[in-house]
Amino acid sequence: LESIFWDISMRTVEWDYDLAGVKLIDQRLLPGELKVNFYQDHHQVVGAIRDMVVRGAPAIGVTAAFGLALAAFQSSADTPERLMADLQVSAQEMRESRPTAHNLTWALDRILNGIEASNQTIGKLRIAILELAQALADDDVRLNQQMARLGAVLIADGDTIIHHCNTGALAAVDWGTALGVIRMAFEQGRKVHVLVDETRPRLQGARLTAWELKQVGIPYDIITDNAAGYFLSTGQVQKVFFGADRVAANGDVVNKIGTYMLALAAHDNHVPVYAVVPSSTIDLSLANGRLVPIEQRNPAEVLDLEVAGQPVTPVGSTARNPAFDITPNRLLTAIVTENGIIYPPFEQNLGRIVAGN
Amino acid sequence: LESIFWDISMRTVEWDYDLAGVKLIDQRLLPGELKVNFYQDHHQVVGAIRDMVVRGAPAIGVTAAFGLALAAFQSSADTPERLMADLQVSAQEMRESRPTAHNLTWALDRILNGIEASNQTIGKLRIAILELAQALADDDVRLNQQMARLGAVLIADGDTIIHHCNTGALAAVDWGTALGVIRMAFEQGRKVHVLVDETRPRLQGARLTAWELKQVGIPYDIITDNAAGYFLSTGQVQKVFFGADRVAANGDVVNKIGTYMLALAAHDNHVPVYAVVPSSTIDLSLANGRLVPIEQRNPAEVLDLEVAGQPVTPVGSTARNPAFDITPNRLLTAIVTENGIIYPPFEQNLGRIVAGN
Repeated sequence: LESIFWDISMRTVEWDYDLAGVKLIDQRLLPGELKVNFYQDHHQVVGAIRDMVVRGAPAIGVTAAFGLALAAFQSSADTPERLMADLQVSAQEMRESRPTAHNLTWALDRILNGIEASNQTIGKLRIAILELAQALADDDVRLNQQMARLGAVLIADGDTIIHHCNTGALAAVDWGTALGVIRMAFEQGRKVHVLVDETRPRLQGARLTAWELKQVGIPYDIITDNAAGYFLSTGQVQKVFFGADRVAANGDVVNKIGTYMLALAAHDNHVPVYAVVPSSTIDLSLANGRLVPIEQRNPAEVLDLEVAGQPVTPVGSTARNPAFDITPNRLLTAIVTENGIIYPPFEQNLGRIVAGN
Repeated sequence: LESIFWDISMRTVEWDYDLAGVKLIDQRLLPGELKVNFYQDHHQVVGAIRDMVVRGAPAIGVTAAFGLALAAFQSSADTPERLMADLQVSAQEMRESRPTAHNLTWALDRILNGIEASNQTIGKLRIAILELAQALADDDVRLNQQMARLGAVLIADGDTIIHHCNTGALAAVDWGTALGVIRMAFEQGRKVHVLVDETRPRLQGARLTAWELKQVGIPYDIITDNAAGYFLSTGQVQKVFFGADRVAANGDVVNKIGTYMLALAAHDNHVPVYAVVPSSTIDLSLANGRLVPIEQRNPAEVLDLEVAGQPVTPVGSTARNPAFDITPNRLLTAIVTENGIIYPPFEQNLGRIVAGN
């Protein structure tokens, strides 16, 4: 399987072994410009996650892992134990950069739990951390392809699919989650058409998903988030697909703001709804979605819109900008993971699949 | 009651008796600029409705009525019968400018049915048409104030209300429908807070409703349309209000795209949903909302978004842009009209209230 970025032969997030640092596609500039940023300071990586240079649950998990490797190389600790203490501080800073996504915490814990300070040199520890981060990145691509293969059977020839936010190669290291499933069905020869909802406020659908679909050649139309209900209720849509930033033990899905309303409209019209997530997104420690902290972002993201060069909102307006919402498990048809397609009752079936991971 | 436009002492739509033509606030320029356009050609009035210089069901009804008066003055007919024939052609052109709104057809029919060619001079007919149009405009303000008084009882002190699109003074001749109800409750001394959904694609919420609320001094926050579900499901909203472009005999509401998803999310969280409409918006000839033609507008309205001076969508992207959707009657708590607040079963109760008009 070729990378979607064959033209620049790189992943969304990547460690540069020559320059010793993290490379990120600056997703804020797409689709106008394809630019790669380079970071050698782990504080800058935290900033890049917070400012959404990189976004998408799998992608920020791997970015944080490489960020932790940077922190290890930057640390001036003179014992392995002090290095470990420095890493704990850096990891906490990264966790707080985007509080909702589970992959971020999951990736950091995977690394911190994977190394052992005793009987190690600082140099060996640094290499071990980088190797763990690299393994996470490679695993992510492999898992995404596995999910795409498993999920593609859900898509029939001729399907029109509404897709929310961006869940493609840009949201992961490569390939993606929900968009990966759609792409796999397309590459297997099935005709699909995607209604790309623009995903206000940051417009990841209009900017990134449209751009990725264009690269791959999948036909699409952009719609406002508002319009999904119209297309669903007029029988023009066969499936709804999205990813998730966290899935609770009962199958509640915490995902980009607007997912709940989309899933509700699909459910009201008996259109199947699928969340596609690596099992690292599933947080069995949370009984339900209401327990997940919802990030409140800068109101400027809502207010900074322009049309024809003119600002849209009255001067002095205020806004509220929750970044995620909770889609209750009752609205989901199935959750697609690299370990299989999980159907209700999610409470029983999710635990089994994650435990088996 | 003072007009919301006291500072410029004019209505959204008005006949200028000195210059003999129609004045419209150019709503495409708000909130950046408050500009009044003047029209002496009825074809230009059709263009102004189609291009949304003026929008809002009551406002375009009255605009079309004044447009018909212009057509009467412009006609070169030499007999009353030929004038009537010219008016039929002009009326048809106006009806087709926005196919979904019922008030447009209703207002034109009110005028065409209100005049009688026999035993009339052309000059007297022209005056009669203008007088009927002026009466429609004056009636609209009176009806809106009546609706606002009736509906205001639904709003409790401390309510946070989600409001969709624009239904204020700008959507009517003055005062408005749903926003008029909110304003009346506020002026009666109740504390209200409005979550203004921006209403993609044309952003009438972010542009116009926010501007009107600011004029009146009602506190508000702008939210993306996507975010309504979050606020509803976290118990932060007590009521949902919107207007309508057409209400079918069974109470199905055809309104600005996105209304259906908003009503669905409110209903899913047991938050009351109110449509506020003059009885002229109720079309008893249509059994249900599915029979209403849904206007498909220019995809450029979806694609022309910019952030920081940069276009958002990839070059060559296509879009679909339905302007309205259908909110099934089961999602509505009540419909507020100038003749009373109507509760289910709408099929029985709507007929009674409109018949009594």
